[in-house]
Parts: sequence; structure tokens; C-alpha cells
Amino acid sequence: MSETTYPNFSFEIKHKSPSSHARLGRLLTPHGAIDTPNYIFCGTKAALRSMTAAQAKSLGADIILSNTYHLMIQPGADVVEKLGGLHAMMGWDGPMLTDSGGFQIFSMGHGTIADEIKGRRNDGRDKMLLNISEEGAVFKSYMGGGEITLTPESSMQIQRKLGADLIVQLDECTAFHVDKDYTAKSMRMSHRWGDRSLAEFKRTNDGKQAVYGIMQGGVYQDLRQESAEYTRDRDFFGTAIGGSLGGSRAQMVDVVGVCMQYAHPDRPVHLLGIGGIQDVFDNVRLGIDTFDCVSPTRIARHGWALSKGAPRERLNMRNARFRDDTTPLAADQDNPASQFSRGYLHHLVKAHEPLAIHILSMHNVATITRLMREIRAAIATDTLDQLEKEWIV
Amino acid sequence: MSETTYPNFSFEIKHKSPSSHARLGRLLTPHGAIDTPNYIFCGTKAALRSMTAAQAKSLGADIILSNTYHLMIQPGADVVEKLGGLHAMMGWDGPMLTDSGGFQIFSMGHGTIADEIKGRRNDGRDKMLLNISEEGAVFKSYMGGGEITLTPESSMQIQRKLGADLIVQLDECTAFHVDKDYTAKSMRMSHRWGDRSLAEFKRTNDGKQAVYGIMQGGVYQDLRQESAEYTRDRDFFGTAIGGSLGGSRAQMVDVVGVCMQYAHPDRPVHLLGIGGIQDVFDNVRLGIDTFDCVSPTRIARHGWALSKGAPRERLNMRNARFRDDTTPLAADQDNPASQFSRGYLHHLVKAHEPLAIHILSMHNVATITRLMREIRAAIATDTLDQLEKEWIV
Repeated sequence: MSETTYPNFSFEIKHKSPSSHARLGRLLTPHGAIDTPNYIFCGTKAALRSMTAAQAKSLGADIILSNTYHLMIQPGADVVEKLGGLHAMMGWDGPMLTDSGGFQIFSMGHGTIADEIKGRRNDGRDKMLLNISEEGAVFKSYMGGGEITLTPESSMQIQRKLGADLIVQLDECTAFHVDKDYTAKSMRMSHRWGDRSLAEFKRTNDGKQAVYGIMQGGVYQDLRQESAEYTRDRDFFGTAIGGSLGGSRAQMVDVVGVCMQYAHPDRPVHLLGIGGIQDVFDNVRLGIDTFDCVSPTRIARHGWALSKGAPRERLNMRNARFRDDTTPLAADQDNPASQFSRGYLHHLVKAHEPLAIHILSMHNVATITRLMREIRAAIATDTLDQLEKEWIV
Repeated sequence: MSETTYPNFSFEIKHKSPSSHARLGRLLTPHGAIDTPNYIFCGTKAALRSMTAAQAKSLGADIILSNTYHLMIQPGADVVEKLGGLHAMMGWDGPMLTDSGGFQIFSMGHGTIADEIKGRRNDGRDKMLLNISEEGAVFKSYMGGGEITLTPESSMQIQRKLGADLIVQLDECTAFHVDKDYTAKSMRMSHRWGDRSLAEFKRTNDGKQAVYGIMQGGVYQDLRQESAEYTRDRDFFGTAIGGSLGGSRAQMVDVVGVCMQYAHPDRPVHLLGIGGIQDVFDNVRLGIDTFDCVSPTRIARHGWALSKGAPRERLNMRNARFRDDTTPLAADQDNPASQFSRGYLHHLVKAHEPLAIHILSMHNVATITRLMREIRAAIATDTLDQLEKEWIV
């Protein structure tokens, strides 16, 4: 069915690991193809914080995303459309994804799901979700405070104007602490929203975009199965895993494992909002094809450099031991940012120079693109365990 | 005499304008040559704020500077030396200048000279100058508050460790409001400091650096003449114009004009801390060879884009008229930053995205390097007046 709905998209699984569910794929979009597993870098408000999209590309980034919620508020989908869509606006000619806008709205309403997925504190300031109903969600804009309603249909219309290749159905992202009964009801409403998203998508389908359905169901394995089967049986191009994945690494592996067991086997699967190095290894083994996380650029703002083989996956450039260290951030990463000395970065971070954030962001993006390249190579040679030991100590 | 003291440096005046004192030159250093007139971009704390030195080079920057005062406090000259000096640390292989450290100390003591030269407010917080004597200046470090003494000798020693090609004698930078008597006494002390700077420089001269003497004398033409003659008769490689240039464009032209009349005619002349577009035209006509100013990167942080032919030399990207403007920042400037649409920059500035500062900083540096290239071409063809009408409206 996908061939009819998505004539300009394809996903080919080229190789399956003999020792895990890891797989190599190729995802084709109107803006080119990416090899999977791959990592989608976050350009939240149509900006990768401190670097241009072209700079990210020079560091090996293949695909980026922006957040519908932020863009619908500022500058507004109509303005993005007038500026030629996200690709033209940002100077990015590769594949791109937008989310539905739901995640930010619900995380502002609940708090804890954002804590859980994004590692962010929520102090109540941001509780701007006013109402959820079958129709959609009503929330207060942080620009001016006016009320905005987001429905499955309006999310599709907005994402159409933004113009990303891969777009996502609206779903309710429930909080970590909610009970099974609420989770089940919410999940089934998300399924109805998925059907409405698909119907609206097809009404104006121009072949330029492809829709992902979302699996919800929290930490409850039977619900995850039900949701995976829902997405499997609908005409989505890809499948995304949303919602709470539990409170531990083991629980995340269980939840994602159930999703993968029942999800459509031939479609690309995206794991929403997860992207630490250990997470990537764990979930690649379960068959995840794409990841996204703000952490590579966010931790740069706190002075952290992602580093192959470093304790906790990273170096704290504030540490006094780097004071006169002439060692490059990563001599074996072939990009200019990774060649700066640790001593220089220590100085820049301590001096609060914005250049520290720019360099560390670029270094971190380069480190993640290297990780994904090495993971793809390791899947091909069935040496993922060995590679993991090099990255994680 | 310069050939002996500065065997690896030269300054050749290649062409003199028939209609003004404007001139084309070539300044050779151990890290390569620059064509003059040229603009020295400010990397205050060994960082061009939001871009790498290599990025500045790709935008046409030929020479950069760092501030001795900031670096002696953080990370300290010894650390910079251990990290291989400023060039290695910053990844910059072109010519570089450091100042003496005096300007920041005295501007913190006085306030008004900084207001005058740098367009900066001083609210008294920063008054950290404790004492000035014949020996040197004692000030309080902003890191930890300890007392530091800067003398002509220690300034040379510190600049030796920092390793810039062009270094500057210590001088006292007097406030705008001081009377002629104080200005004269201060200037003569600066001359004695210049002699001590030169003596210390020669004691350890390794051929890798060249010293500029500084002309002081405030707005008093006879003092400016005396100071110009002082520098002319000493073994400095180049001459810098420091101190107050008065309160108006006309007074600046008068003061710089006197300096140029009596300065050594064959040495490069640097105008310290001045670098608006109109300033550059005015002072190129008086024979100034190099400029420096923080404004290209500083105004980027306030959302301003330097622009050829724009009122007040720049565009305010916050302005609502740019909201859905697909016009590039400057289509005729051949660098990626200048190709982003004004609408995109409007969005980034309004959304407080750090990328706005990065893009506008790069665009502004590119605009200034273009200005200097066009000015050099216009001097060659004696069309400076025509070029000025294109830039300044």
C-alpha cells in the first residue's frame, strides 16, 4: 500500500545481523537517502542552536529535525512557508523530519514525561496545557499567551507548510506516573488521532512527505503490542516509538523490544527523543533505525565533549586537568572542531566564550556521526559487541 | 635601523593616492603578509566570540588580535605558552597582533575613554585600577581579586609568551575629560614606557615579533606632534594611534591628521579601537593602514547586520519588515552566511537562537573584509569618493 501513498519514499533493509535484531537500511526521501541506523540532529526552532545546517552536513550529519510546536508559535507555519519551507530557510537540502507538536504541549502539561525522556527539570512554570479532548489539545502560547488548538488535522496542515520530508501523526504523550487505565484510554485516542492524521494527510498528499505513526502504551507490554499492531495495520510510511519507556535501561529494552516484535517489519522505526551512546547501542540491537536527541548540542552548552571511550561517554572540559593539555579533542576525527586542544576548550569554557559552545557542538555532532558510521560498519561485520566496548567504558 | 631589529618584518608602500593621503601597502610578518589598508578582527580572549579563526579566514579575514589584559588574567600567559602560543591555540596561521594590556586597565580606571573609543557604558562596577606610577600600573584581577602589576617590561614578557607577530608598547590611555597638563605628563610617561618596552623587547628579540610605539596626546595638536615625533625617532616597527580622538568626526580627523603629518612616513600606522565604516573611509584618506574594532561581532549580538548602502551602515534584523523577507542578507557577498534570508535571521534573532549571532557575526566579518577589498581597489583607481557614496547613505 505504501507504494501508492508514498511514491517518492522507500525503505530498504539491506542486511540483518545474525546475532541481534540490528539491521542496515537505506531510507529514500525526495531530499536524498540516508543509511540507517542513523541519528537525526535537533534543530528545534529551525536552528541547530549554534551551527548552520551546512556546518552540520560538513560534520557528517545526514538528517535533521525541527519541532512543529515551537515553529507554529514562532515564526508561524505561514511565515515558514513564505520563506520557502524549512529546507530553503535553513539552507539544508537533505532529508528532514518534523514532529507533530504534541510532545512539547503534553510535556508542559505533565512535566514528568519530559523529565523522563529528555532529562529536563520541570518546575511548573511551563504548565501551559489547558485542555485535552477527543478533538485535540488546547494550550496557551508562550508568545503573547493566546489560546491555540492543535488537532490531528491542524498538525498535518502545519507540517505540510513546514515542508519536512518525514512528518509525524499527532499523539498524546502521557506522563510517566499515569496508571494503566489512563494509558490505555489515551493510547486509543492517539490511534483515532492517527487515523485522522492519515486521512488529512491523504486529502492533500502531494508525494513530498511521508507520515510516521506512533506507538504508545507506556510501560505496559500488552498495550505496546496493541499499539504496534495498530500502526502496522495502517498506511503509515514509518513507525515511531513514543511515550514512557520506563525508569531503567532494562525496562527501556523490554518496552522497545515488544514494540519491535509487533511493529511492521519492513518499515523504518524511529525512537523519539533517545540518543545517548549507550542508548544507541542498546536500541540498534533491537532493530531501531533512527534516533534523535538534543543532547549532543545541549551538553555542549554545559561544557561537555562527547568522547569515544570516556567514562560516562564524555569529557567535562571545565576540569582543571585540561588546563594546559595540548591533546586535541579527538585527533582521529577528521573535522576542524575536533582538532582544537583540550586546553583551549578548557580556557574557552572557563571564560564563558560562546565559541566554546560552537566548537563543542560541532565536535559532538561529529562524534555522533562517527558513532553511527562505526555502528553501521560493525553491523555489516557482526562486530557490534566489540565496537561497544571501544565506546563505552 | 628596522632591518636590524626586525629582520623578518617589512612594510612596503606600493601606491599613494593622488587625491588624498590614502595608500596601498604590504605588511610582511613571519606568519605571512597582508595588504593594507586592512582590518584586524578582535579575538579578545583568544576567541572571535562565536566563530573559529579558520571560519574568519574563510570570510576573508587576514589578521586578528587578542587582548593581553584578558589573557594574562585567564588563562595566564604561561598557559597560553604551554598550549603553543596564540596561533597554535586558536588554529590561526596568519598574522596576529596583541595589545599591551594597558587599555583595559585604564579604561576600568577612568571609564570615559572606553565610552569614547568603544561606545561602551561604564557604570563604575569595573573600577579596578588601584595605582599608576612611573613603574607601571597596579590593578585588581577580576578573577579572584588579587593585585597584579603591569609594567612596560612585564607587558613585553607577556606578549612574548602569547606570541603574536605584532605587539604594542605599554602606554597610559588617559580619559577623555583630563586637562592638557595631565595629558602632557601622562604622554611623556608613556614615552618613557615606550623606551623601556623597546629595551625589554630587544633584550629577548628572537626575530619573531615586531613592536609598535603608541602616539598619545589626547586632542591637543602640539602634544600629538610631540608624540608622533617621539615614535618616529625610536626603533619601533610600526606606529599606533591611541588615546582620545575627541568628541566628533571632525575632531578625530584633525587629531589623526596631525599624527600622520609627523609620524614616521614609511612605517605602518594602526588606529586603535576605531572601525565603523565611515571611520574607515575617513581615516584611510588620512593614510591609516590598519584598523581594529569589536563592532562587527558585537553588533551581531544585538541583531545588527552590517550592510553596504544601508542607513547607519546596518540593518536591524529585529525589524518586523523582515518577517517574511526572502532577500538574502547580501546576495553579492560570496560566503554562505550572507546567503541566509533576512526573514530567517529575523526569526532567529526574535527566537534568541545563538545561531543568529553566529550567522550575523560571520556576515559582518565578510562585509568588512569586502569593504577593505573594495577600498584597496578604489585607492588603486582613485575612486574612493565614489565607493564611499555606495557604502554610506
